[in-house]
Amino acid sequence: MVNTMPDSDAVVLLSGGIDSSVLLHLIRKDTARVAALCIRYGQRHAKELECARRQAEAANVAALTVLDLSELGSFLKNASTLIQNGAPVPRLEDIPDSMRGQPPTYVPNRNMMLLAIAAAYAESLGATTVYYGAQAQDEYGYWDCTAAFLKNMNDALALNRKKRITVEAPLLHNSKAENVRLGLDLGVDFSNTWSCYRGDPTACGVCPTCVERLKAFETIGRKDPVPYAHMVEKDD
Amino acid sequence: MVNTMPDSDAVVLLSGGIDSSVLLHLIRKDTARVAALCIRYGQRHAKELECARRQAEAANVAALTVLDLSELGSFLKNASTLIQNGAPVPRLEDIPDSMRGQPPTYVPNRNMMLLAIAAAYAESLGATTVYYGAQAQDEYGYWDCTAAFLKNMNDALALNRKKRITVEAPLLHNSKAENVRLGLDLGVDFSNTWSCYRGDPTACGVCPTCVERLKAFETIGRKDPVPYAHMVEKDD
Repeated sequence: MVNTMPDSDAVVLLSGGIDSSVLLHLIRKDTARVAALCIRYGQRHAKELECARRQAEAANVAALTVLDLSELGSFLKNASTLIQNGAPVPRLEDIPDSMRGQPPTYVPNRNMMLLAIAAAYAESLGATTVYYGAQAQDEYGYWDCTAAFLKNMNDALALNRKKRITVEAPLLHNSKAENVRLGLDLGVDFSNTWSCYRGDPTACGVCPTCVERLKAFETIGRKDPVPYAHMVEKDD
Repeated sequence: MVNTMPDSDAVVLLSGGIDSSVLLHLIRKDTARVAALCIRYGQRHAKELECARRQAEAANVAALTVLDLSELGSFLKNASTLIQNGAPVPRLEDIPDSMRGQPPTYVPNRNMMLLAIAAAYAESLGATTVYYGAQAQDEYGYWDCTAAFLKNMNDALALNRKKRITVEAPLLHNSKAENVRLGLDLGVDFSNTWSCYRGDPTACGVCPTCVERLKAFETIGRKDPVPYAHMVEKDD
């Protein structure tokens, strides 16, 4: 589904998860014409794209483009549990410490692919900035969510001779709890966000991103509006 | 069409043009297991992919993957004559000098997209190196064919915590004429290469890449085996 608009000021890479949804609403607050870009790269949790669509609607974006590049899954599945037909997504507690720097949920070079495409999209639309939702907790497991990665991507994009695109990650130093709080201030409807990596109809509650999400809501004393299959009730 | 092999030593980004075809044969000379990667990104000249397939066969590669990502053309066509449904590809002589640094045939951020995908493919296969066919004459029109671009891409990829992929462009300092000579030494069948940007059944002979190709063959005193629609016969 492609619905481009000839002129936009910014592109937001939107997955439909918490961070990119909060980011979209944050950027829309001060930017008139925002184009949202969603990419299917073979992820199991394509359900997040329906959430992305709803967030794009709520944020009243100028354009929403959903690109189906799921053929990428044909090889990514060999190396990541996040991809359809890959190995199963483990529970967070089953990932050994030795693998935390690049866990089984890491997708080979994903963010370079997504940002390169988003930058091409921005250049095609006449936008100057690409925003993506990397946050502070991502850096432990994902080298492609770090400040160093962002700097190197921008160094490369700065070589463009006519339309220099800049990639920004305004939430890079926020915890996920801080993003949830920010999203509540911005009026984000978190029932229309999706985080679970497993791609089942109901969020599992035990995969790395479910655990992180539940902890974020708990940290700020709010209940996650999304239902979970395996929700451990806490007495506190 | 995907035909991956679990283990490969190197990935060659293959378009089916002169440079990447020569590169493929050059790398295959010293590398046992080479995976070739062809990507449809909406280019008019998809005919080159048939040539890519023949070159991959001739070079006896371990794997050939053809990815159909032509949905990218949905927005790239707004900004490049190389893309289907974009503006027509101009004759080289009709491109004003002021546009030579980033000509109408430039595709927004194309090489970052292609190399990011190739690096993800390499990482998935267990290969360590991605080769691409940038050559000396590309740098005048394409910032994403320069040594500086290559360095920045490698700086970004070096952040990978487990499987560091390196991008190499061994032909970066060769002219196209030198690549044709090298290809002849390697036994490359240039009748199975395709350069013309226009996507017509016969090469046009007047678009930028046809002119460059014809000049390369002329420089080394050989006849290009590919037929042209508008071939200017020279008396010399």
